Amino acid sequence: MTSSVGVMRAEEEMLNWGRLLMDGVPYSDLAAAHERGDNVSWFEHWMETAAQYEEAAQRAGDTGHRHTAGELFVTAALCAQYAQFLWFGEDRAAGQQRKVELYTKAASYLEPPAERFDLPIDDVTIPGYLRVPAGKGPWPCAVLIGGLESTKEESYRFEELLLARGVATATFDGPGQGEMLAGTPARGDFERYTSRVVDFLVDDPRLNAKRLAVVGRSAGGHYALRSASLDSRFVACVSWGGYVNFGNWEGRGPLAKESWRYVSKSADMEEARLFVEKCLDTRPVLNELRVPTYFLHGALDFVPVSQAEVLKEYAVNADLTVVVEPAGDHCCHNLGPRPRLTMADWVADQLGAGGVAK
Amino acid sequence: MTSSVGVMRAEEEMLNWGRLLMDGVPYSDLAAAHERGDNVSWFEHWMETAAQYEEAAQRAGDTGHRHTAGELFVTAALCAQYAQFLWFGEDRAAGQQRKVELYTKAASYLEPPAERFDLPIDDVTIPGYLRVPAGKGPWPCAVLIGGLESTKEESYRFEELLLARGVATATFDGPGQGEMLAGTPARGDFERYTSRVVDFLVDDPRLNAKRLAVVGRSAGGHYALRSASLDSRFVACVSWGGYVNFGNWEGRGPLAKESWRYVSKSADMEEARLFVEKCLDTRPVLNELRVPTYFLHGALDFVPVSQAEVLKEYAVNADLTVVVEPAGDHCCHNLGPRPRLTMADWVADQLGAGGVAK
Repeated sequence: MTSSVGVMRAEEEMLNWGRLLMDGVPYSDLAAAHERGDNVSWFEHWMETAAQYEEAAQRAGDTGHRHTAGELFVTAALCAQYAQFLWFGEDRAAGQQRKVELYTKAASYLEPPAERFDLPIDDVTIPGYLRVPAGKGPWPCAVLIGGLESTKEESYRFEELLLARGVATATFDGPGQGEMLAGTPARGDFERYTSRVVDFLVDDPRLNAKRLAVVGRSAGGHYALRSASLDSRFVACVSWGGYVNFGNWEGRGPLAKESWRYVSKSADMEEARLFVEKCLDTRPVLNELRVPTYFLHGALDFVPVSQAEVLKEYAVNADLTVVVEPAGDHCCHNLGPRPRLTMADWVADQLGAGGVAK
Repeated sequence: MTSSVGVMRAEEEMLNWGRLLMDGVPYSDLAAAHERGDNVSWFEHWMETAAQYEEAAQRAGDTGHRHTAGELFVTAALCAQYAQFLWFGEDRAAGQQRKVELYTKAASYLEPPAERFDLPIDDVTIPGYLRVPAGKGPWPCAVLIGGLESTKEESYRFEELLLARGVATATFDGPGQGEMLAGTPARGDFERYTSRVVDFLVDDPRLNAKRLAVVGRSAGGHYALRSASLDSRFVACVSWGGYVNFGNWEGRGPLAKESWRYVSKSADMEEARLFVEKCLDTRPVLNELRVPTYFLHGALDFVPVSQAEVLKEYAVNADLTVVVEPAGDHCCHNLGPRPRLTMADWVADQLGAGGVAK
């Protein structure tokens, strides 16, 4: 176990049971991780759980049980995701690599399959996955953006909601995320990377290039506002637990701060603070946001709910739907499926998807 | 709050978090129920939660969001199910009625829809639901049987697994269960009721009458063994946390015993004990079981794992697949999705479903 921060068990700060469960981590595994012995690190525990799921998934795949193989490989990838997300050293890199490997194995088993893409930009590539409903398109598509320590492999359950409603999904790692981190730390122009993905999507004849939405969660909800403001090809935007500007550095826990330092490759905390406060700010461009925008926030979030007011102040040209759940925590993860279902319906409505089954 | 048994909070005996979560109760609601104030009963709490889901579901349905309406009405029905399952007086009846009402609202929104049937037998009717995959059949079909206090409205998540694998599902309330309880207490000839459902299924041209399985959970896993032994139209059988004979009355908790008294309408506990020991015993007929049979058991179950040995001793003409999970509790509810996925695959394999998507 390397470089956990603080004396309390690291997961007590960052762990949101609602998030993990809603994203598809089985409760049984979460309980077992919570009850593990003191001599086993969070990382080691989850990596072992991932290996067990991988084995079961492989067995299912080898015997022609494709649904089970897909489900269990995704679960394995989620275990590796949540193994690494608290650490910032070798474990992080090792966990990321395993997650990528496990999700790669899941991809072809999913229904519809997750099709890998790698898009050159500058001297690196943007890795991602596209899932297109079976049947006759062209389909509308939602571009999904993860947050601070989330990646393209993490949104399976939410993709399923969109796919069931006739919306294709594209996920990718942007600056500071997943496979991009090594070559491209977090940056203030995330929208360039989103737009590169859109370049790719509009050329796919299975998709309806006029019906694209961007949906970002947590920090991704910031990137989504920025991307929709600066790329007019989006016709709808969702900021799910996001923010206009990063205005509450002091309110973040030590692991969150360390995580920002890590993804921005800042030399120290002060540099990290300057980065998020200066570079994560959509106020200067938010008057360019001209599409219907859904802003979901929990009143109990550590991200100040006042961000909803900031949004209203600056996004003067957008049709805003602001939903503040009084009992909601960060991203309303603690409220179960209801807010996610409603959000998926909103996206489908905006894209005219009409609830077509996948 | 009426007639809870014992001084500890009633749910501490009967509540299996794994079961509720795996069946589709959101973790957020389970946590809220656990943390409710002492002045609110388990029943009242869940009935209120059910009402909230009903309202959200209705709103979704009214605005054309069919997927969400179906999902939330099912969740509402599950809340009413788990509201009532600890009580034996007026609350039980009221909760059952609400559950039926809420699931009725869900039925047409589900995909494929749950089609209600009511089959006359003697002077009562067997109520149930049939779900048939969209597309070209005829489809194999699994008949699902619930346990002591479970009913036809409770198996949505498992149905989804079977439907995704190209297997239609039929659920029903048998003697002592759900809507049948009032007129027909638990009985020793459950198989008559299963067979009445089979009579109905074999006449449906969308189904393949030669490809029927019976899948029973908990006490339903006992009824399934009995039904498959005595109705040769089944080609496969699953006993999921079930038993050959009820051999461990003393090992059951007070609420479970009271529940058996309640569903058998026994005058007292002694009569209830005699009922389960005498009438819930498939040993005399188990040599008639001639189809592949899957027996899933948790080694930590209160149902003795020795029932696996009893099965092997008596089911001498059946091809048995006995899976004993060392860390599994009753029905292996505590192990997350893996055992259920594997079981669904087994059913699909036996029925030659070939993993066709729903």
